Amino acid sequence: MAGNTFGEILRLTTFGESHGKAIGGILDGFPAGIEIDEELIQKDLDRRKPGQSHLVSPRIEEDKVELLSGVFEGKSLGTPIAFQILNKDQKPGDYSHLSKTFRPSHADYTFEKKYGSRDYRGGGRASARETVSRVVGGAFAKMILDISGIEIFAFVHKIGSVSIEKEYVQLDLLSTENSPVRCPDTESSGKMIDLIQKVANEGDTLGGEIKCVIKNVPVGLGEPVFDKLHADLGKAMLSINAVKGFEIGSGFASTSMKGSGHNDIFIEKDGDLLTKTNFSGGIQGGISNGSDIYFNVGFKPVATIMQDQTSVDMEGNPVTIKGKGRHDVCVVPRAVPIVEAMAALVLADHLLLNKTARM
Amino acid sequence: MAGNTFGEILRLTTFGESHGKAIGGILDGFPAGIEIDEELIQKDLDRRKPGQSHLVSPRIEEDKVELLSGVFEGKSLGTPIAFQILNKDQKPGDYSHLSKTFRPSHADYTFEKKYGSRDYRGGGRASARETVSRVVGGAFAKMILDISGIEIFAFVHKIGSVSIEKEYVQLDLLSTENSPVRCPDTESSGKMIDLIQKVANEGDTLGGEIKCVIKNVPVGLGEPVFDKLHADLGKAMLSINAVKGFEIGSGFASTSMKGSGHNDIFIEKDGDLLTKTNFSGGIQGGISNGSDIYFNVGFKPVATIMQDQTSVDMEGNPVTIKGKGRHDVCVVPRAVPIVEAMAALVLADHLLLNKTARM
Amino acid sequence: MAGNTFGEILRLTTFGESHGKAIGGILDGFPAGIEIDEELIQKDLDRRKPGQSHLVSPRIEEDKVELLSGVFEGKSLGTPIAFQILNKDQKPGDYSHLSKTFRPSHADYTFEKKYGSRDYRGGGRASARETVSRVVGGAFAKMILDISGIEIFAFVHKIGSVSIEKEYVQLDLLSTENSPVRCPDTESSGKMIDLIQKVANEGDTLGGEIKCVIKNVPVGLGEPVFDKLHADLGKAMLSINAVKGFEIGSGFASTSMKGSGHNDIFIEKDGDLLTKTNFSGGIQGGISNGSDIYFNVGFKPVATIMQDQTSVDMEGNPVTIKGKGRHDVCVVPRAVPIVEAMAALVLADHLLLNKTARM
Amino acid sequence: MAGNTFGEILRLTTFGESHGKAIGGILDGFPAGIEIDEELIQKDLDRRKPGQSHLVSPRIEEDKVELLSGVFEGKSLGTPIAFQILNKDQKPGDYSHLSKTFRPSHADYTFEKKYGSRDYRGGGRASARETVSRVVGGAFAKMILDISGIEIFAFVHKIGSVSIEKEYVQLDLLSTENSPVRCPDTESSGKMIDLIQKVANEGDTLGGEIKCVIKNVPVGLGEPVFDKLHADLGKAMLSINAVKGFEIGSGFASTSMKGSGHNDIFIEKDGDLLTKTNFSGGIQGGISNGSDIYFNVGFKPVATIMQDQTSVDMEGNPVTIKGKGRHDVCVVPRAVPIVEAMAALVLADHLLLNKTARM
Repeated sequence: MAGNTFGEILRLTTFGESHGKAIGGILDGFPAGIEIDEELIQKDLDRRKPGQSHLVSPRIEEDKVELLSGVFEGKSLGTPIAFQILNKDQKPGDYSHLSKTFRPSHADYTFEKKYGSRDYRGGGRASARETVSRVVGGAFAKMILDISGIEIFAFVHKIGSVSIEKEYVQLDLLSTENSPVRCPDTESSGKMIDLIQKVANEGDTLGGEIKCVIKNVPVGLGEPVFDKLHADLGKAMLSINAVKGFEIGSGFASTSMKGSGHNDIFIEKDGDLLTKTNFSGGIQGGISNGSDIYFNVGFKPVATIMQDQTSVDMEGNPVTIKGKGRHDVCVVPRAVPIVEAMAALVLADHLLLNKTARM
Repeated sequence: MAGNTFGEILRLTTFGESHGKAIGGILDGFPAGIEIDEELIQKDLDRRKPGQSHLVSPRIEEDKVELLSGVFEGKSLGTPIAFQILNKDQKPGDYSHLSKTFRPSHADYTFEKKYGSRDYRGGGRASARETVSRVVGGAFAKMILDISGIEIFAFVHKIGSVSIEKEYVQLDLLSTENSPVRCPDTESSGKMIDLIQKVANEGDTLGGEIKCVIKNVPVGLGEPVFDKLHADLGKAMLSINAVKGFEIGSGFASTSMKGSGHNDIFIEKDGDLLTKTNFSGGIQGGISNGSDIYFNVGFKPVATIMQDQTSVDMEGNPVTIKGKGRHDVCVVPRAVPIVEAMAALVLADHLLLNKTARM
Repeated sequence: MAGNTFGEILRLTTFGESHGKAIGGILDGFPAGIEIDEELIQKDLDRRKPGQSHLVSPRIEEDKVELLSGVFEGKSLGTPIAFQILNKDQKPGDYSHLSKTFRPSHADYTFEKKYGSRDYRGGGRASARETVSRVVGGAFAKMILDISGIEIFAFVHKIGSVSIEKEYVQLDLLSTENSPVRCPDTESSGKMIDLIQKVANEGDTLGGEIKCVIKNVPVGLGEPVFDKLHADLGKAMLSINAVKGFEIGSGFASTSMKGSGHNDIFIEKDGDLLTKTNFSGGIQGGISNGSDIYFNVGFKPVATIMQDQTSVDMEGNPVTIKGKGRHDVCVVPRAVPIVEAMAALVLADHLLLNKTARM
Repeated sequence: MAGNTFGEILRLTTFGESHGKAIGGILDGFPAGIEIDEELIQKDLDRRKPGQSHLVSPRIEEDKVELLSGVFEGKSLGTPIAFQILNKDQKPGDYSHLSKTFRPSHADYTFEKKYGSRDYRGGGRASARETVSRVVGGAFAKMILDISGIEIFAFVHKIGSVSIEKEYVQLDLLSTENSPVRCPDTESSGKMIDLIQKVANEGDTLGGEIKCVIKNVPVGLGEPVFDKLHADLGKAMLSINAVKGFEIGSGFASTSMKGSGHNDIFIEKDGDLLTKTNFSGGIQGGISNGSDIYFNVGFKPVATIMQDQTSVDMEGNPVTIKGKGRHDVCVVPRAVPIVEAMAALVLADHLLLNKTARM
């Protein structure tokens, strides 16, 4: 209810303020008997964590996940899986100047008004550090998907004004991790890096887009009315910090097309029903049709900039926010595993729910 | 769970196949003591229904809502409000030729595979006729919002390649209903009408965009992590038939901006805290900040076209789908009250939930 | 949330005031492809309805169920099943004298205080007439259980001070419907009938107990912590009007036993694991163990009596409530199909949920 | 869904196996701005923990709760409150002999069958150690109730065949903690202690009953149909390990009464509406009426006895279970804070939900 639980059958509930003792969560509804690969979890955490390169925030968090329950002798028990990550690199002093000030385009003001107080240390619950728990939950979800052969490939499609010009089918999605900005198109990757460095020197920040492709999804996932598969994917993505837009398949571009050009014509091939095109993005009527699912996620530029900004304090007095601290110029590369994690949670949840569609 | 319920406190559960006896729903969690204006409900239904002008489907449905419970002596009882709309204009003969055929970019194939069978008459549960129940639920939700002064204005922003060029603040949102295509910009409205007529003559169809503006939202609605206000709005919109994209505030355009230009600077004015700009779209950290909430919703072109299309039947044999029946060239104008209804359900739900944020 | 939905995967949402237009519900999450026997539904409704014999209320309701959606060509579609029963025998005049009065041990006062008003005609939403919708939902649930061979047998165990002295295994549970009071023990049945007639002559009312036995439940239904199978059964039963107690297996009698006498010793028989005794009532650790599930449900005496009672009106003035109207001396026989229905909903829900316990 | 979450607005999700690293939970939906008294939490934990006297299990668990999030500067933030209790006194060697054996009247067999494996160390997730997390959640819930003046008094009413003969209104409920068995009736307390010691010497175990009284509940808590206040209380209690029965107010005794004697007659006193008697147990139509809520909870005798028992192993071979380990003769005294905790969670949840019943 209060917004900290995601999913229906596979349910991730998360907790934690950015500068509290720990962040973590409980993953309930995870099926029994699945082999748990703790290294996979850590690997995704490492992809998300700060300090991976000079392009991202130098805050040093070990981000070491500790499993507290639900796994026994290497397998899931069917009981809730609890996990935590200690917040080691806490420097509350960095933030004390913000206790009475509202930073522009952050959640300081809305938290203060909604709850009457807030943990002002680094954003507290509103910090993107919360997404660590999503990555852990998503890594578990991927273990469920792996059994069905479902694979998720997210990558950076756009940073600022630099965008991949190719279709995703022309890209080698296995090469994404070779790029420091997680862009599988070498040329675009280089331009993005240049842009980030340039904007970093200006003390400014960038946004961008992540594209996510999900392969080998069986036909039938998704519920036809309110819980359409892409509606749940959309909510999952829009719940990630800084996300401002979501589009499935042909997305907003479809609004300029005509039906005759947009319809995906069915064809039969070797006994399987396929479509000539895939403007639908692998989902029709809210239900997966077996084609690739693909969608775009738009991120606004990072709100914390290294420039002075005017703002207002809790008494309404004008203040100047100094640009300081340890922050990313562009979070989009680090958000790739977060997008994957949320997609994995949605898919795994629907995979489990779909078991109840027929007796 | 199975996708036919929307909301947490204010919960709309809908039912009905397009050519079954009736469609309708149950709205639970509606507060007691609210005056119920049945005319308001019918008015929104009339805005959605087919046959409003020569620009939309001529199917004649009276779409007369009947309330079965939850209202007594003109006020809500606090008990579930059940309603139904009889399906009077059923012509099952129109659809029998589709019982074994999968129409392109419809839900025929995915329903058949998921459930092992389907009501093939006019799309059954996958028909956009299901949105009638949303409009009824939304009309009730608006009665809750009205008490708090919250107002919702949706309008057609784009049809095909014709788009309003102005900002929404430059438009007279009270004039939307004067336009047959629900576009409050007279010049664009005319172009859209011309385009629809031209494409109708081609037997083809169009998509478009709806923009929705919500005014007078109190600060504090929305939950900070998974149930961010715009994430719930996004899911609500993406669950509407034919929607392919959603963007809040600055949306995808923000991905090309820099933080210094995108941040909404706080200012104090007459004791209130405002922002100079509103790229955030009235939501920060998932919580409303008191500014206008605005978002775009992208609709693909209608899948049913008046042209022959090739497809495949249930045995994999090639078939030709003839273009016939009663269908809209462009559903976007009729979707305006649906967008409003879903927005109203989200806002009212969060308004109620927010009552529990503090004792 | 607001209490009108029951179940997690198989979800029954009900609506309706006793003297409104109709009562009914939506059953969501019902699996596709199940043959629907409408006669079975009507048969259970007929068991519940008033006027079955001179022992029960003479109110004549046809209680004819109408299915509005979710069933096509004789089978479930996997979409929500909506149903309604029109309230034909409305005589609002009977109740107008109660609009400002609080009847003792009814819900008049609590509804008035919670909601600020109420439908005072015959109890409105608080009337036991609401259980009609449960019986319909339960009849559908039995169709799911039937596929797995699960059978539910409820019967009247006690009325007033007359109780069956035998263990349920000594009774012929198929003979229950032969008794006008649904008591499968002939001798007790006769005594119960005599008692009801005697108390009817006094203008007074009776309570009693229903025992329910569920056979052929597979091992594994139920969730181990909060959603233990007997906890969900208990809630289901306690949600029925007039129920004051629930006990599973050995129940309250177990509180006087010692562990050595109460433990159910495992034995192996023809490859199956069984227990020598079944004090557990077929559930261990919240999960079914394959033995018979059995439980008792205690009903208080009917609150509406044919005697004058003092009470207080909405202004606090003393009033006399006259005993009149059409009411049961003892509802327990009519509650048998309601107990079965609620048990069926719980079992079917857990049967579906258990499909997700392993991949 | 998978049974590890309790509540709708105030939601407790728990985790942990008895011999894993830790047990704990996340309490979501806790209102912001409430002063958090960590000592109150620890005090309730200490009342539940083993080793309080020679009458209960000597297992030494420090049961020190650690708060990980949701509390800042002594107040609740409105964000999820996570907590954990480390399992310090793990002796897995004690349990290895049980890895392939099913103990009578435990959850070993049903867990093994449902999940395909289990954490056999001390019951794993099925251990009553899980209730530690409920006590923590309940202690927080009490802080909410305290603001409204609601007070909860649970006490031991019966152990084995020894029962308090007085009505609860004749007892000094503030004296409960003075008794080692938490029985506020001195004479009964003494007899219970004697009985426990006698049965301990036999290597056997006892069950009993807890009565719970809730005072100062405002009128209006509870939802009228499925989520009746006593139905939720019943589920809460039946979800506690070893509970076999629940009765509200007059309970099963009411089944032998007549309506004329059972009805609670309304009277006006100093402007308040009261009832002469309180057979209803403070709840009418599922909604609190302002009178004391009271109910009984029946516990079966402890399944682990200090006597040899025959059983069967996973291959169906007969085995003998030796009575050894550290176990309670009677858990009922230690269950008093658990009953209170679950009652507090139910009441606080309904208190919050009731805020949405009217605008």
